[in-house]
Amino acid sequence: MTSVLSRTRLLSRFKLNTAVPLVQIYARKMSERADTVLNASDSWFNKYVAVEDAPDGIFKGVSDRFNGITVDSNLETCHPEQFSSVLQKSLSHWTDNKKRGIWFKVYLNSSHWVPELVNSQFKFHHAKDNFVMMYRWLPSDETPNIPPYAHTMVGVGALVLNDTNQILVVSEKNALIKGSWKLPGGYVEPGENFVEAAIREVQEETNIKTKFESVVSLRHAHGAGFGCSDLYIVMALAPENREIVKCDREISKCEWMDIEDYLQHQKVHETNRNFVRTYLRYKQNGLKFICKDEVHSILKKQYNIYQVEIEDTKLPNSSL
Amino acid sequence: MTSVLSRTRLLSRFKLNTAVPLVQIYARKMSERADTVLNASDSWFNKYVAVEDAPDGIFKGVSDRFNGITVDSNLETCHPEQFSSVLQKSLSHWTDNKKRGIWFKVYLNSSHWVPELVNSQFKFHHAKDNFVMMYRWLPSDETPNIPPYAHTMVGVGALVLNDTNQILVVSEKNALIKGSWKLPGGYVEPGENFVEAAIREVQEETNIKTKFESVVSLRHAHGAGFGCSDLYIVMALAPENREIVKCDREISKCEWMDIEDYLQHQKVHETNRNFVRTYLRYKQNGLKFICKDEVHSILKKQYNIYQVEIEDTKLPNSSL
Repeated sequence: MTSVLSRTRLLSRFKLNTAVPLVQIYARKMSERADTVLNASDSWFNKYVAVEDAPDGIFKGVSDRFNGITVDSNLETCHPEQFSSVLQKSLSHWTDNKKRGIWFKVYLNSSHWVPELVNSQFKFHHAKDNFVMMYRWLPSDETPNIPPYAHTMVGVGALVLNDTNQILVVSEKNALIKGSWKLPGGYVEPGENFVEAAIREVQEETNIKTKFESVVSLRHAHGAGFGCSDLYIVMALAPENREIVKCDREISKCEWMDIEDYLQHQKVHETNRNFVRTYLRYKQNGLKFICKDEVHSILKKQYNIYQVEIEDTKLPNSSL
Repeated sequence: MTSVLSRTRLLSRFKLNTAVPLVQIYARKMSERADTVLNASDSWFNKYVAVEDAPDGIFKGVSDRFNGITVDSNLETCHPEQFSSVLQKSLSHWTDNKKRGIWFKVYLNSSHWVPELVNSQFKFHHAKDNFVMMYRWLPSDETPNIPPYAHTMVGVGALVLNDTNQILVVSEKNALIKGSWKLPGGYVEPGENFVEAAIREVQEETNIKTKFESVVSLRHAHGAGFGCSDLYIVMALAPENREIVKCDREISKCEWMDIEDYLQHQKVHETNRNFVRTYLRYKQNGLKFICKDEVHSILKKQYNIYQVEIEDTKLPNSSL
């Protein structure tokens, strides 16, 4: 029993021992780390280049193009009792090597690292479900140069007009203005495009399937959910069916409303009426605010580009 | 010395004692809490209504419109040794009272709460510099219904064209594509409007002062910094001076480039050239993508509305 325990302890310690089996385990960890970080979703942006070549007893991290380093708690084997001393040695090492932003990605199962990192002047940067990212700016001769994390929630609203001049409207269960008729819509999910988000939300809330027609308008404001700013993008979508099946969890009422009624309705707010008026003017004048798929020729990165076009019939000399 | 220490311990404990001075301190804390939370930047959105009326020995939280509750570590006086038992009693109390999302806003100086909350099935939701927000979804008969935090970084780029057909271009020190000529620009700061952000970034990077002319285009993509999506909003701005003073920290080169050279230049990427072509077509066709200030008449909330307009001279019958 004693030998099993001591082996477990040995294996769970940060690599200070050069016994062959540990070296092999460590080497595998390192290669997993490099793959994991290099394949991470922001590797394209940060150009993570390599696992940092560090001496024994120093946290291994991955370098970024800003001369920063990121340590991932899921890829470290440092024993809890050694965390503090390994951290101090690592900070000295990184300071000597002129590192700038030091990042610790701390997963839930290593949350005991958090108070230790706070004691060593780390702050919070961002968090997602199973990890919190903490940072410390090392150079004492330079002001910190780390951009804040995302602070804009993006939502989409859908102007769904059918061919008998009716608009699809919903009333939400937890509405800010109780009983108001709103456009169907909701938050854009991580990794989702705006057009896809609008089509998905309409189908989830009302069972109406739609096709993209045009962006209509953007509304930007501050102090929304979680203290974020919010950007609300209104899309005109064409319906492909008419039968409404409302989502009982989120929606209390849903209907097709005559557009003339909508433009006068007391429970429709002015901002929403204006979106409809704006879109009707776009149609009258042959304006479309389209969405194009593009691929960056050097970065090989996919983009959606949104821009305004105008029908040739409206402006015969236009090359738009 | 002993009496001072015991008083300190007493004061730092969660309020289980009804001695008058502690009640007064506690009452002040509660009123500070209500003010702080009700004045928080998302109070408008979440409609925080009141400090929850909870029995002694239960964390006091503030209710939101989704039947959730938020506990703020800066407004609690629970002694570290009592945290775990107060948490368990509170979770039972909230379960009995059908609370849904339970939120703990944990500031740096209470970071010892983090591992304890993880032990009680809390996860991370978001974090900013001096706090991490953790949550647990209580109802066992309902799937969790908590939207993810913001995951879109918003940046602005500026098309600054002067009256001799030159465009303002910069080359960044830490550019993704080394030596490339880019539009000046950068991330939108928390609480900042897009137009203000574009004007600020141009002035910071180049010392050129500008006025807003038109939005040009939006570019949306995934897998950018911190694993976020990013939205890049290109604005056309009119310069008010010509003398460039570049920001040495971020910019390696900056100049006015003839627009014809720009449209052919090998170190200007196609996506950027397309923004310029798009804007030139807007001007040719009398299109403007404007930004309006609006105030919601019921919520008294300020918005920026972005929408497309067309000059009357281009479409004499238009009412746009």
